[in-house]
Amino acid sequence: MVKTRQWLLAKKPSDLPQLEGPDATFKLTETELPDLKDNELLVKAVYLSNDPAQRGWISPGVDPNRLYTAPVKEGTPMHARSLAQVVESKSANFKKDDWVLASSGWSEYANVAAATTQPAPELPGGLSRTHYLGALGLTGLTAYMGLVEVVRTTKDDTVVVSGAAGATGSMCVQICKHILGCKKVVGMAGSDDKCKWVKSLGADVCLNYKSSSFQADLDKALPGPDGWANVYFDNVGGEILDLMLRRMARYGRVAACGAISNYNNSPDKTLGIKNWFEVISMRLEIRGFIVIDYLSKAGEALDKFKKALSEGKLQVEGGEHIVKAGFEDIPKTWMQLFSGSNTGKLVTALQ
Amino acid sequence: MVKTRQWLLAKKPSDLPQLEGPDATFKLTETELPDLKDNELLVKAVYLSNDPAQRGWISPGVDPNRLYTAPVKEGTPMHARSLAQVVESKSANFKKDDWVLASSGWSEYANVAAATTQPAPELPGGLSRTHYLGALGLTGLTAYMGLVEVVRTTKDDTVVVSGAAGATGSMCVQICKHILGCKKVVGMAGSDDKCKWVKSLGADVCLNYKSSSFQADLDKALPGPDGWANVYFDNVGGEILDLMLRRMARYGRVAACGAISNYNNSPDKTLGIKNWFEVISMRLEIRGFIVIDYLSKAGEALDKFKKALSEGKLQVEGGEHIVKAGFEDIPKTWMQLFSGSNTGKLVTALQ
Repeated sequence: MVKTRQWLLAKKPSDLPQLEGPDATFKLTETELPDLKDNELLVKAVYLSNDPAQRGWISPGVDPNRLYTAPVKEGTPMHARSLAQVVESKSANFKKDDWVLASSGWSEYANVAAATTQPAPELPGGLSRTHYLGALGLTGLTAYMGLVEVVRTTKDDTVVVSGAAGATGSMCVQICKHILGCKKVVGMAGSDDKCKWVKSLGADVCLNYKSSSFQADLDKALPGPDGWANVYFDNVGGEILDLMLRRMARYGRVAACGAISNYNNSPDKTLGIKNWFEVISMRLEIRGFIVIDYLSKAGEALDKFKKALSEGKLQVEGGEHIVKAGFEDIPKTWMQLFSGSNTGKLVTALQ
Repeated sequence: MVKTRQWLLAKKPSDLPQLEGPDATFKLTETELPDLKDNELLVKAVYLSNDPAQRGWISPGVDPNRLYTAPVKEGTPMHARSLAQVVESKSANFKKDDWVLASSGWSEYANVAAATTQPAPELPGGLSRTHYLGALGLTGLTAYMGLVEVVRTTKDDTVVVSGAAGATGSMCVQICKHILGCKKVVGMAGSDDKCKWVKSLGADVCLNYKSSSFQADLDKALPGPDGWANVYFDNVGGEILDLMLRRMARYGRVAACGAISNYNNSPDKTLGIKNWFEVISMRLEIRGFIVIDYLSKAGEALDKFKKALSEGKLQVEGGEHIVKAGFEDIPKTWMQLFSGSNTGKLVTALQ
């Protein structure tokens, strides 16, 4: 019998998740895992991926048919992707000590299906395997697919990226500048320090959206009509999306990837869009997307990433924000996603 | 010298246009037209087209580069399309008494360029030429291009049309049902009487959006997941758009044609979108469009309309709301667009 600690979803939060108190969102528990079945692996999580999308999996009152993945049920372990090691294998495809990418949740140990687990072999150039959780995994693919497949970004485009110091946004900036060769890349981030980093990744301009002059800065960065944005990669939604509608060029395309500005608002809160008419008059195209729809093209994208890495065009080393944490601090670490504390991919290194 | 009365734009309205008082939006005046030049026509307006889009041409503080047509300047005649007759021609292409479609504005007589004027020959089947202003003109083409070219509507789609008793919406319903053969068509309109008419045009269901049970009616009309809407043709924006985001099927497409619910709100008023995340999770595609981008395909569309008319599949006779009005009542008649008084295309028959 394998014993494990687990973080369960205790109560679906309608606004900001609570770490403590009677309405605590999560609950630490200990349980025994069932016996390992054929084609299953017992894995031990070593690193956890922290993703804004996880917030959507625990919202109350959501019709599961309107999500892209099964929501987490109250009383069951919180879902998460991990970089893990195989402890025991009942699959011919994996053996003990293999590194894998697993949907093992917030659990020290978990039984996972081999079919939904991917190998995580050593990366070239001495790169840390943790990049499989970020730049060289779904995060990097989200950036690439959104830009290339969803809104057809080319070298002729002026591109704006919000959340540019985040995991996806920081890859967007680099892909635009160093793989697609876009005309101009404007990043947005929540501090001058973050902006400095975003510019080091290749952004021509980075705007601090918390600055009192943000709207004027935005207008200056996108002088019209020739300088308006052809592409907006939207990680945040809300007010910044609204402001961007005013600065999209005719036939501009918006890749709606995330809306983190709104994830912790209760359903009665509204996001004020003042500039909807711009969608019509400027003939804008807005496309929501989920990376899993594009996985058939992942190989092609990862090949481009590897080539760019080997040519020194892609920086992934500085793109991780690794927090060492004990198992009991998993929810607290995850919550950093919503306080703007992370620069790049937020990864929990379990101690 | 030809004398004419004209309605000038006196003061750009930031909210509802005013018919009277110190902030009156329009001003009646009389002027002498300049001498007719070569390739110009002197025309007399007989019918005026009343279009919600005209509201956008008179808003204050709008960057002309962000409109699809030149805004009206204060102190100049209000823009409008008319069905007019030629009084004098300096063009080889038109002669006295010809019926034409002209951009003659709110003017009894006007000098217009022959190049921007279209002939309006007699219609088959004894149909009134006024249909050139509606079903068989830009209005009908807006419906067709939005459905077919912008959001690729097919027979397999469940389609929702807002403003379905309006000029564009009533054509949308008929095109979906009788030309494209869509699976299901749900109209929305502002009264039970209007809904009765919308159903007579072929809508499977029509919902009165002013009803207190509207949201429940909408959910019932679009039972999920198989019954959700694949296409939403949006003439109104605002709250109904927000509600529709909740009822779009995965990969659903929204044709953003108009936003009349918001045209008379001052710029500081916001349209509350609560359900933006649905755009992402359901991978929605939202496309703003303007019919003038698709005029190269107008011939093809009008041929389909003529065929449908001859087969009795298209009803245009009941689709006009013709108001007889003296020249002095032009603004008052136009304002009916914003009070929900018209069913079908609102046309002013000048007396």
